[in-house]
Amino acid sequence: MIDLLALCAFNAAYAHAIDNDQLEKWPDFFTEDCLYRITSADNEREGLPAGIVYADSRAMLQDRIAALREANIYERQSYRHLLGMPLVIASDSDTATACTPFMVARIMLHGETRLFATGEYRDRFVRREGQLLLAERVAVCDSTVTDTLLALPL
Amino acid sequence: MIDLLALCAFNAAYAHAIDNDQLEKWPDFFTEDCLYRITSADNEREGLPAGIVYADSRAMLQDRIAALREANIYERQSYRHLLGMPLVIASDSDTATACTPFMVARIMLHGETRLFATGEYRDRFVRREGQLLLAERVAVCDSTVTDTLLALPL
Amino acid sequence: MIDLLALCAFNAAYAHAIDNDQLEKWPDFFTEDCLYRITSADNEREGLPAGIVYADSRAMLQDRIAALREANIYERQSYRHLLGMPLVIASDSDTATACTPFMVARIMLHGETRLFATGEYRDRFVRREGQLLLAERVAVCDSTVTDTLLALPL
Repeated sequence: MIDLLALCAFNAAYAHAIDNDQLEKWPDFFTEDCLYRITSADNEREGLPAGIVYADSRAMLQDRIAALREANIYERQSYRHLLGMPLVIASDSDTATACTPFMVARIMLHGETRLFATGEYRDRFVRREGQLLLAERVAVCDSTVTDTLLALPL
Repeated sequence: MIDLLALCAFNAAYAHAIDNDQLEKWPDFFTEDCLYRITSADNEREGLPAGIVYADSRAMLQDRIAALREANIYERQSYRHLLGMPLVIASDSDTATACTPFMVARIMLHGETRLFATGEYRDRFVRREGQLLLAERVAVCDSTVTDTLLALPL
Repeated sequence: MIDLLALCAFNAAYAHAIDNDQLEKWPDFFTEDCLYRITSADNEREGLPAGIVYADSRAMLQDRIAALREANIYERQSYRHLLGMPLVIASDSDTATACTPFMVARIMLHGETRLFATGEYRDRFVRREGQLLLAERVAVCDSTVTDTLLALPL
């Protein structure tokens, strides 16, 4: 069974990579045929397709990072993720589904720190060759008005 | 002994119910004869009786939720709880006392996200028929000025 | 091996002491010959010496608390630390290095609550006579503009 502490350790590494500007590591937390979406609770409740970000492969995540690096947006700001304990919905030896709450602060390098996004990850984890990976991560933001500000991954 | 991870899993489920608008589940985290209070650190230090919210049974918690549903306040806002690791003060096979820090953001559906309340839960857990329940949860808010804004449970 | 849950429990006790105005306990989380620094990610990246706070012994931490008590600053505000799960970099039976993200809110007693500092602890833990202690804690703040506001320990 994939246990709670393994999920915690995974999430700690995931957040650390983003928040310490190791964005190139970020796609490696996902399976090759992963699904990654950012949406709002409102959209998700009404069954609307992903509003903010949509990617259905690790290659798309890599493209996204390459674009960010080119645009140089990432240098002017950073994020800090604080993740709660995962709520494990189901788990067996090689898969787990879980919800994990997040708060993300956005830090402008020489300026203000702001609580930028809150919400929860709705995740499906798989174990492949001994390694835990995200087959699916949907970042469901509580607010409907985070979209225009999104640059770095949640 | 009631261990740290069991408390973590309990708190994750507790926060998830409130933050995902499953408020009717909230009273079920408590014993029938529970004590639930919201107060401020200042009041608590001076031994003043609960300031903000007081309930001494699960039935009172159910009434509170019913009133919230009727008032429809819950539709216009949501909360996001981020809970820290519990500090276990004492624990045996069927009871545990612990302090758990919280930050709660309030999200106005089409508007701003604000760090709404911080503080700590002071909890007494019991195990009844194999299930972990709160015999007492006192949500001690750090600020004295959160009261007028409170709608959803902490 | 020093395990993840032991680090979590340590950090919970550390934050609890600061946030509940038990500042005199704070130096006891460190070894006698500890290093404690507060700096910014920017400074740290460029290898600049500690910018904001520097102490290289437990005695210096005790002095700092004594000074805070004398200045009475601590009465007018409090902090609330929310700490993430530690990312364990290395661990053996008696030492561990880990990074732990933090968000700290500052609460003015009769006033506003503000997200005050975000960042990560970069820690080196040792076990001495069965007790886990910090040989080194560097609090790396994400923003470069937190310094002038610092009063209580991070």
